[in-house]
Amino acid sequence: MNEKLIAQAQKAREAAYELGVSGIGVRNAGLNAIADSLEAGVDCIIKANAVDVENAKKAGLSGSMLDRLVLNKQRIQSIAAAVRDIALLPDVLGEGESWERPNGLVIGRKRVPLGLIGIIYESRPNVTVDAAVLCIKSGNACLLRGGSEAIRTNLELARIMKDAIAKAGLPKHAIEIVEDTSRETVTAMMKLNQYIDVLIPRGGAGLIKSVTQNAAISVIETGTGNCHTYIDEFADLRMGLEILINAKCQRPSVCNACETLLVHEKIAKEFMSQARKELVKRGVEVRENATKEDYYTEYNDLILAVKVVKSIDEAIAHINKYGSKHSDCIVTKDYDNSQKFLKMVDAAAVYVNASTRFTDGYEFGFGAEIGISTQKLHARGPMGLRELTTVKYIIMGNGQTRG
Amino acid sequence: MNEKLIAQAQKAREAAYELGVSGIGVRNAGLNAIADSLEAGVDCIIKANAVDVENAKKAGLSGSMLDRLVLNKQRIQSIAAAVRDIALLPDVLGEGESWERPNGLVIGRKRVPLGLIGIIYESRPNVTVDAAVLCIKSGNACLLRGGSEAIRTNLELARIMKDAIAKAGLPKHAIEIVEDTSRETVTAMMKLNQYIDVLIPRGGAGLIKSVTQNAAISVIETGTGNCHTYIDEFADLRMGLEILINAKCQRPSVCNACETLLVHEKIAKEFMSQARKELVKRGVEVRENATKEDYYTEYNDLILAVKVVKSIDEAIAHINKYGSKHSDCIVTKDYDNSQKFLKMVDAAAVYVNASTRFTDGYEFGFGAEIGISTQKLHARGPMGLRELTTVKYIIMGNGQTRG
Repeated sequence: MNEKLIAQAQKAREAAYELGVSGIGVRNAGLNAIADSLEAGVDCIIKANAVDVENAKKAGLSGSMLDRLVLNKQRIQSIAAAVRDIALLPDVLGEGESWERPNGLVIGRKRVPLGLIGIIYESRPNVTVDAAVLCIKSGNACLLRGGSEAIRTNLELARIMKDAIAKAGLPKHAIEIVEDTSRETVTAMMKLNQYIDVLIPRGGAGLIKSVTQNAAISVIETGTGNCHTYIDEFADLRMGLEILINAKCQRPSVCNACETLLVHEKIAKEFMSQARKELVKRGVEVRENATKEDYYTEYNDLILAVKVVKSIDEAIAHINKYGSKHSDCIVTKDYDNSQKFLKMVDAAAVYVNASTRFTDGYEFGFGAEIGISTQKLHARGPMGLRELTTVKYIIMGNGQTRG
Repeated sequence: MNEKLIAQAQKAREAAYELGVSGIGVRNAGLNAIADSLEAGVDCIIKANAVDVENAKKAGLSGSMLDRLVLNKQRIQSIAAAVRDIALLPDVLGEGESWERPNGLVIGRKRVPLGLIGIIYESRPNVTVDAAVLCIKSGNACLLRGGSEAIRTNLELARIMKDAIAKAGLPKHAIEIVEDTSRETVTAMMKLNQYIDVLIPRGGAGLIKSVTQNAAISVIETGTGNCHTYIDEFADLRMGLEILINAKCQRPSVCNACETLLVHEKIAKEFMSQARKELVKRGVEVRENATKEDYYTEYNDLILAVKVVKSIDEAIAHINKYGSKHSDCIVTKDYDNSQKFLKMVDAAAVYVNASTRFTDGYEFGFGAEIGISTQKLHARGPMGLRELTTVKYIIMGNGQTRG
């Protein structure tokens, strides 16, 4: 039943070995060929995309959900430009160090690709190009499973990219896209530990949960963020308000947006009278009588839970209990409190006096972002190209045996 | 039903926060206190151990299985000495780097502990001390679940260690041992993702598989090794024989021992006539008509599968297909073949002209070893103290918001 999937995974696994030992020159040539081919293929892509969009409309999709699906000439050009930017980034493979042991063994540790990466994502077709290109750049093959709404667009994008990398001298099967988007097939994919080295789900909490529960392959969890802004008793209240408004309102649907405001009781009345007004003006529902359930919720929407705390310790304990270990901020003018917060909050990114919206590979200066890891193993926080690699020990001897 | 387990995990999680911000001076004092207390408590330990040993004998345990369980004065002293050695190793926490972004944000990346580590292991009681001490050194709390055969010894060791670290000023609950060794309780432990950050199973393939299949927590897989020795057509055959004998016979029960010999057809007859004799002399069953099932098997015993290959490419393809990506070796005098093998074999440790038995944290010079990871995420190959840490981004601003 999943013979096609297995055949694809097998071919991609073989391609991974070939790609993994290719030079950076060929890999970059492959990326530039992808950019050129995407631009040259604009009409084909738009044609395939129009079918997806038409089907989505029939299925009742509208508004921002529909808009995410649409590719036009301008969007394709900007995708191609992003691919060229990634080609300009330095190589992350091959670097390493070595040392000699007393018995004469020379031990080297070398950075190598992960191998075959399975990526499971939702409807935006730009992710298809973005994920494939980051994998190729870092020497990995990829097996991509996008959403059913975008399947025609994704297949067309994959066809163009495969032809492009083949022309540049890279193995065509280094990019494979799962055609059957049924639930059975995606579940089967999560079990292919014989071929796939790592799974990266990119999408909402439901998707992430399904992958972590069903996978027989190592997973990098990305993208769930229940983030906090804590306004300390020693805060510059005006700065606190600007940071809160930015963290809550600038893009409420994303993982680094603020979900709960913690405010010290000594300044709560003064701060809230102003904050309430400014938040409501921007359409935010302010939940001042928030429940435990609110505290656990990542709204991804214009809703804000509020809790008045007696101390910084209560704020830290709240964050460590209810948060998702993504990004949390303290606004304060007090040095000791800033240091305490940085030390004691258990999260990928901890801020003093800045919006949590900065948790992002580009904002951190990595030049690329595969996602934001909310786990502690392997990668934590924004993941750049290096997070798509592992190490390999290489040992050179002249007959050593162990005594 | 598992209220006690949950209470322990909760206390250990709280202790992790306290331990995670403790200085290296206090942590090392804790380790030295453990070493002193183990030596001072020799009689109590031996008494508790005698009950375990008696029960194990009644249950029919004998030979090396029984011997692994036994603690005597000499063994306890050598455990204490190993603890003092770990206290002498450099701290792995706090190191990091920072950079400034164009908007003035200062972004720091700092090495921090993983938090609470769950360790699930089998009967040897020395692992109880070893695991606890490596966790404390790296700022992590631990919840230990050892085998039922060693439960009295383990509880006594834990009692002594808890008292010792408390005296040194560390939180007592940073070391917790699961008293109920039933299968239900260990399964419940694997689901405690609210408290436990990472699970490390240490033991046989069955244990590892059970943990990876049941855990709701990130797992570091350790210890399964289906390792290969490939005798190339250009090998020094005498060196090849020495390396093979060492990799197969020096300690056949461990994960870095050789399980399959691959031998190039051009030298197969000459090599095997000698090798067969030497292997049989050492009690090895040589399976020259090995099956697919043999190729997939980690014997951990004096059995060796043999395959004659037509080329180095066939050898590499065999290893990548049947191996467990642990440790593999080529014996050759040919430069190009050595480089090809190093590049193309997908394993944690790849050797030229040396026994695979060297894959080990101490042999690699790490000063400590938590286990040998056979996964590609987070840690690969021998794991030192650094592999028990993660990173945390610390961002200092002065009111930055995202535009």
